[in-house]
Amino acid sequence: MAGLFLSLEGIDGSGKSTQGRLLADRLRDLGHAVTLTREPGGSPGAEEIRRLVLEGATDRWSPETEILLFTAARRDHLEKTIRPALGRGEIVITDRFADSTRIFQGITRGDLSDTVDRLHALMIGVEPDLTLLFDLDPATGLSRATARAGAELRFEDMGLGFQTRARAGFLELAARHGRFRVIEADGSPETVAARVWTAVAPYLA
Amino acid sequence: MAGLFLSLEGIDGSGKSTQGRLLADRLRDLGHAVTLTREPGGSPGAEEIRRLVLEGATDRWSPETEILLFTAARRDHLEKTIRPALGRGEIVITDRFADSTRIFQGITRGDLSDTVDRLHALMIGVEPDLTLLFDLDPATGLSRATARAGAELRFEDMGLGFQTRARAGFLELAARHGRFRVIEADGSPETVAARVWTAVAPYLA
Repeated sequence: MAGLFLSLEGIDGSGKSTQGRLLADRLRDLGHAVTLTREPGGSPGAEEIRRLVLEGATDRWSPETEILLFTAARRDHLEKTIRPALGRGEIVITDRFADSTRIFQGITRGDLSDTVDRLHALMIGVEPDLTLLFDLDPATGLSRATARAGAELRFEDMGLGFQTRARAGFLELAARHGRFRVIEADGSPETVAARVWTAVAPYLA
Repeated sequence: MAGLFLSLEGIDGSGKSTQGRLLADRLRDLGHAVTLTREPGGSPGAEEIRRLVLEGATDRWSPETEILLFTAARRDHLEKTIRPALGRGEIVITDRFADSTRIFQGITRGDLSDTVDRLHALMIGVEPDLTLLFDLDPATGLSRATARAGAELRFEDMGLGFQTRARAGFLELAARHGRFRVIEADGSPETVAARVWTAVAPYLA
């Protein structure tokens, strides 16, 4: 695929979404065509699957069913949004991608890492060129996330122990894969945006 | 799993659903506990996924996304309906199961057989004890199916060539797996029910 494929990962409240908007703005100011998207969701079909997964009781779906639904949404997102944008030579920034499934379904709800990896290899098969991991103390992240309004509190509901395991899992993934850059996510939005820019700039033509 | 797990398969209009009801009635008259269910659907979550898959334009989802959604629905159906009923020692009769995905997504919309089989092995892993394949001339099946009212005409919309490939695919599956019994599906409901009973009776305690 042409274009540049970036993903933003991290625990809830790590500032990913704010930083995604700031990064997209800066890239557009420089004349780049940018598609800013998110998961779960990012295409009309995937947004419908998102509603199905995120609404309702925490235990509404088993971890295995949830993994299948997230993978269905990701496949649609890839086909309808990401691949077409990369094909037009754009920079795609997605707020979460497969690493979130590896962490939130793969390790924090029991050991389904192998299932997640095999399902990804079978049905998705694509990784970002660059993944920015926004790393933050889980207690800070959780207080930021719960301060936000919104109905989609399912994962945040799972508490500090969950966020702590998720943070450790993300750092472990980052240590294993060269496509990751860890961004220290505390500090003002401007401070963090400067760290993001340092990580992204080498990837621009 | 205890209990007895039966699936009914075949092209649209083959009379599966009618025969499922007749078989369930006869088994209940004999004192068996029976759960009669269907796919896609068969549990509250799976029914929601069913609506997502079957409504809207035929090309709304790619074959790969559709396979993932059907597999998510099947996993929920298995966890919430089939396994609990078998655990109570019941006879479970499902109107369609994994063989329908093997045929309708695996072979009739391009060659995704291997993907379907690998996904099934990874996320489902269970086969019925007995599968009744209702075999019928596709033109007869199609005229029966299109005569029925209902919004879920997506697969029927795909026409006679599609149904013909599906029938051949089902017969090939039946030839490969000992759990299949092929039921000649033309004739009156009573005639077909008698054929069904001949196939099922040996499986009853």
